Amino acid sequence: MSNKIILTGDRPTGCLHLGHYVGSLISRVNLQHQYKQFVMIADWQALTDNSENPEKVRNNVIEVALDYLAVGIDPKLTTIFIQSQVTELAELTLYYLNLVTMARLGRNPTVKSEMQQKGYANNNTPAGFYMYPISQAADITAFMANVVPVGEDQLPVIEQTNEIVRKFNSIYGPTLIEAQALLAKTSRLPGLDGKAKMSKSLNNAIFLSDSQDELKRKIMSMYTDSQHLKISDKGKIEGNMVFTYLDAFDSDKAEVAKLKEHYAAGGLGDVKLKNYLFEVLNNILTPIRNKRLELAQNINDVYAVLFNGSAQAKEVAQQTLENVRNAIGINYAKNK
Amino acid sequence: MSNKIILTGDRPTGCLHLGHYVGSLISRVNLQHQYKQFVMIADWQALTDNSENPEKVRNNVIEVALDYLAVGIDPKLTTIFIQSQVTELAELTLYYLNLVTMARLGRNPTVKSEMQQKGYANNNTPAGFYMYPISQAADITAFMANVVPVGEDQLPVIEQTNEIVRKFNSIYGPTLIEAQALLAKTSRLPGLDGKAKMSKSLNNAIFLSDSQDELKRKIMSMYTDSQHLKISDKGKIEGNMVFTYLDAFDSDKAEVAKLKEHYAAGGLGDVKLKNYLFEVLNNILTPIRNKRLELAQNINDVYAVLFNGSAQAKEVAQQTLENVRNAIGINYAKNK
Repeated sequence: MSNKIILTGDRPTGCLHLGHYVGSLISRVNLQHQYKQFVMIADWQALTDNSENPEKVRNNVIEVALDYLAVGIDPKLTTIFIQSQVTELAELTLYYLNLVTMARLGRNPTVKSEMQQKGYANNNTPAGFYMYPISQAADITAFMANVVPVGEDQLPVIEQTNEIVRKFNSIYGPTLIEAQALLAKTSRLPGLDGKAKMSKSLNNAIFLSDSQDELKRKIMSMYTDSQHLKISDKGKIEGNMVFTYLDAFDSDKAEVAKLKEHYAAGGLGDVKLKNYLFEVLNNILTPIRNKRLELAQNINDVYAVLFNGSAQAKEVAQQTLENVRNAIGINYAKNK
Repeated sequence: MSNKIILTGDRPTGCLHLGHYVGSLISRVNLQHQYKQFVMIADWQALTDNSENPEKVRNNVIEVALDYLAVGIDPKLTTIFIQSQVTELAELTLYYLNLVTMARLGRNPTVKSEMQQKGYANNNTPAGFYMYPISQAADITAFMANVVPVGEDQLPVIEQTNEIVRKFNSIYGPTLIEAQALLAKTSRLPGLDGKAKMSKSLNNAIFLSDSQDELKRKIMSMYTDSQHLKISDKGKIEGNMVFTYLDAFDSDKAEVAKLKEHYAAGGLGDVKLKNYLFEVLNNILTPIRNKRLELAQNINDVYAVLFNGSAQAKEVAQQTLENVRNAIGINYAKNK
């Protein structure tokens, strides 16, 4: 295990799904053996575009925590915490906002494209949302994170953070450290409908918490090949979500290759193919689902994990904030 | 004494001067008998456009505190505190930023005109400065202030605050209260040079901390009437700073009227007139100056006043923040 620190997390706006599983959760379960890992449930960040729907954020904090624990993120190895419980992050955000110009804020391509997705014009974007990259810089620097796993589209977050770090250090003296992006190796998992992204809001997701029946129903609804009407028809592999998912989740690559050949040649029906995918996914999801149900029996224990993790995280952030205040010179009690 | 709460304060970017004295300090000394008064030394707000010069902010915190105590703001009646010591204000600011659109932020005329004064274009304005009215809304609401003394030009601050209060209450239920502006009765004191505003940066100010010699020197440099060359010349009253200051500070209105008449008719020299003004101002400033020198002997006692006030302020802000968190529903430990 290295001494390096890794920070990652999710906005609690929904249960986690298979896209999260391949995109980040599996890797977190591995990374917790290599790094000191912090995983943040970013309720403040979720509120930046859900201010009118705080219940959603609130309720999903515990759902996300259940998902984390169910997949094997281990609180003995990973500090799982709730962003809002580490109030030091708010103060850091304020200091960093002074180091960023309005023009620079407006140039963040991640925020721009998210604004578009969410239907925000320049005008009606909540100010908190517009500046959430600065709040992320606070998250990353507060834990002195060396490494932050990101998708390609989130690279600007790291860039913005490191700009703030350099500016801060150049004005106030060496205090903060720059972070490195750890680019996700897996490509993004598309939705059941073949759309580019699996997401709750697009209603095309398989959740880690889905029951066996839901899993079956969703797989049966998956997009395959709209020209593949009869079993004997030749079928397309490319763009066929069942094969995309098999590529992503079936470790038996030889079997997948055989199925592709059969499907392409004709003679393999969608239902049979989907039943096969169901077996593959159900094998992966059953232990997660069971563990999740078990954890949900003692929800107070899950809260205890979160509060405990938040207390640990707070201790680290407090130290950073003290360094920051000393550097700026406004720790009056100390410096008078 | 009413149960009403009043919040006011200053950015610690320089010692306080006669403009502050007539514009706000005298009235605070009176108001502390009528209200529960909080006076904030707004170091965070000062940093929003002084991020590269934190020493200035830091050093002036204690200067401003000395000015407060020297003029008679009484820590037994008034809670004097340092903004950055009430960290709850940062968290409130984050919540409020979610309730304000970027368009609304950009419409604040106070910020717009200050940007112009400071030579900020839309581009290079620090984000923290651009949104400082939201941080002010946090200050005002944190103390449940009913009344906020403002100049005409700061009315938009109160408007913005009350908009946030109404939005917050409409989403999360009645939690915060609206504030009323208390408009300053006195008009703004011009500088020694006759410019509209007395200010440190314009180098046209008489500070409460100025020595007797500095006071004399500054008064002798005051702008009177550029056509009044010989003692026998008729002199102008309007735009003559000596008379503007006499109007503002001399309680002997009959004597001022006589001097005006004499000056207008000719025969009253500038030096004699300025010596008279010196006597008037020195009578006001001597007890303040002496008190200030006395306080500065025991600077730790002044810090103690600030820390004590900050602790009191923190207690109030903590309660408000708890109400806010409960309203939003993210006080997990409480609501689980």
